[in-house]
Amino acid sequence: MEVTANHTQTVAGWAAMNESGKVEPFIFKRRYKLHLPLWENGVDDVTIKVQYCGMCHTDIHFMKNHWDITMYPIVPGHEITGVVTKVGSNVSGFDVGDRVGVGCIVEACLDCDHCQSSQENYCDKLVLTYNGILSDGSITYGGYSEMVVVHKKFVARIPDTLPLDAAAPLLCAGITVYSPMKQHGMVNSGGSLGVAGLGGLGHIAVKFGKAFGLRVTVISTSPAKEKEAREGLKADDFIVSTDLKQMQAKMRSLDYIIDTIPVKHSLGPLLELLKVNGVLAVVAAPDQPIELPSFPLIFGKRTISGSITGSMKETQEMLDLCGKHNITCDIELVNTDGINEALARLARNDVRYRFVINIAGDSN
Amino acid sequence: MEVTANHTQTVAGWAAMNESGKVEPFIFKRRYKLHLPLWENGVDDVTIKVQYCGMCHTDIHFMKNHWDITMYPIVPGHEITGVVTKVGSNVSGFDVGDRVGVGCIVEACLDCDHCQSSQENYCDKLVLTYNGILSDGSITYGGYSEMVVVHKKFVARIPDTLPLDAAAPLLCAGITVYSPMKQHGMVNSGGSLGVAGLGGLGHIAVKFGKAFGLRVTVISTSPAKEKEAREGLKADDFIVSTDLKQMQAKMRSLDYIIDTIPVKHSLGPLLELLKVNGVLAVVAAPDQPIELPSFPLIFGKRTISGSITGSMKETQEMLDLCGKHNITCDIELVNTDGINEALARLARNDVRYRFVINIAGDSN
Repeated sequence: MEVTANHTQTVAGWAAMNESGKVEPFIFKRRYKLHLPLWENGVDDVTIKVQYCGMCHTDIHFMKNHWDITMYPIVPGHEITGVVTKVGSNVSGFDVGDRVGVGCIVEACLDCDHCQSSQENYCDKLVLTYNGILSDGSITYGGYSEMVVVHKKFVARIPDTLPLDAAAPLLCAGITVYSPMKQHGMVNSGGSLGVAGLGGLGHIAVKFGKAFGLRVTVISTSPAKEKEAREGLKADDFIVSTDLKQMQAKMRSLDYIIDTIPVKHSLGPLLELLKVNGVLAVVAAPDQPIELPSFPLIFGKRTISGSITGSMKETQEMLDLCGKHNITCDIELVNTDGINEALARLARNDVRYRFVINIAGDSN
Repeated sequence: MEVTANHTQTVAGWAAMNESGKVEPFIFKRRYKLHLPLWENGVDDVTIKVQYCGMCHTDIHFMKNHWDITMYPIVPGHEITGVVTKVGSNVSGFDVGDRVGVGCIVEACLDCDHCQSSQENYCDKLVLTYNGILSDGSITYGGYSEMVVVHKKFVARIPDTLPLDAAAPLLCAGITVYSPMKQHGMVNSGGSLGVAGLGGLGHIAVKFGKAFGLRVTVISTSPAKEKEAREGLKADDFIVSTDLKQMQAKMRSLDYIIDTIPVKHSLGPLLELLKVNGVLAVVAAPDQPIELPSFPLIFGKRTISGSITGSMKETQEMLDLCGKHNITCDIELVNTDGINEALARLARNDVRYRFVINIAGDSN
């Protein structure tokens, strides 16, 4: 294909070749063209040596073609941290050696109302970090690879106080829960937050909630998670969602809920936990429709909102807050030869709470 | 039952005696006690000669026990207009002869945060106008009857310019769509409103939308309704929701949608019509859960909100606006001996757009 002639940098990565969803080593060409002339690293681009990449459940959805939109071979990964190795001539604010991160998005039109108002994550023309199609027609490859080249707009700075490994999942899991917390005024509101589902997104939502002064209740189907929620994550309360008595006792008690449950479920029991005017923020993407009974919605004047990742402005703000509050993710670090085993465990939610791949093989 | 000894006023009404849902004449005792001493008309009460009562689809749900909470005999009706015949000694603002209305609620605690902040329609202790249980333990009977006694808090004034028959449905259908329009800042926003479902609630939502300066699009499964929507109700646009081409052409075009669809449906196609940050207000109560696919919710940062009727403050505001803009409902007036026939037609949505019962049999 003509366009790949402009992709002159050889990169080693890990790709799934088919719906088995297993990765294997994959050598490909990468560059990133937004502007002529066609340099290896465009004038607005930042080349990053990838150090770490988090493993998001979305990776599995794409690798196994759950949404029927996968273009193989697919190099997943959108929780990328690393070090800048090259910057274009129009890039200011990033220098070689800087510690940076890349999240779910690598291109947008930068011109529409959404882009102009720091909501580029809702741009009609947004391009995902992998399995996306760039404006030059080429397919994007993600962070399960040794190097990425990304337009400066989509690069964030990692605060010095945060380790690059445990910070990596902030680029997706972190911003995904932070954005609705900001949107709905949860930060420093002093209100009560329910976190439904205690996985990669949920555990960071609990940490944010505590750091932002909220009273945090974990809502989970797993009684076994109560101890770790209370002791490890400092949750104030824990409700077993299958225990009707517990659920009834907490009706109309919460100001907000962040729903991270990635499978089909009913919003009814969660809505009942909200006070009148309460807000339920959906951040997961079950592949089957969620059930929404109307009574708990209308009788409680409740609101359900959705959001997808966050803007780069919010991402930097979130990372800076994490630096200030020393918030990182609880991770299990895996080597590149352990990706498939980690994927298998991730598929059965057997992880506390996020796998991060040690791409560069660094010991620190 | 002891409490009925205090119910000293004999009233003629129409009640359903069982799940057949058919009404028959029914004589019962009525009074309304919130405060001692036990007068026929309490010190805070207003006695109203019912002139007209609208027929809401909710009446059928209750009469046929669709929600399994009906207490027979049931006297339905919560779109009541009439004339004051008696006021208690604590009542100011209403005098004998005043033209007034009563909606869905006749009692609340008047003390909780919701009541104190003019959101008494979300009071934990709210009592519905029929099939409710008052604080004295008695069951409420609605407006399919010649007289009601209601606490002053739950009586609204009907502007002189509005006829009592065509104003009656404003007490439920009107306030139900007005409340979310107010809540979400639609009034005079100059935005674009979609109205999903063109029945009793939908047709008044279109009228409000036009009066409040919105661009109004009707979204309906019935192509046959296009002419009446555009010509009769002055809708700006009409989309047949089952026509994928029409739906796709209007993606991301609306600021707000009011969803009045009373049966199970998917919110996905409606959400896709909304712009980023758009709001979908659910005001109907399908007895099966609504389907909520996550993608159109999260990728468009959209909001779904629910509300149930409105506060009395909002109700009076809405009525006054209707007086100012000369907004009434399109009704079919039926006599009391035609209630069962009207109920049968209502059950198959064969009404343009609301039946109103001429309770008092007046010719004007």
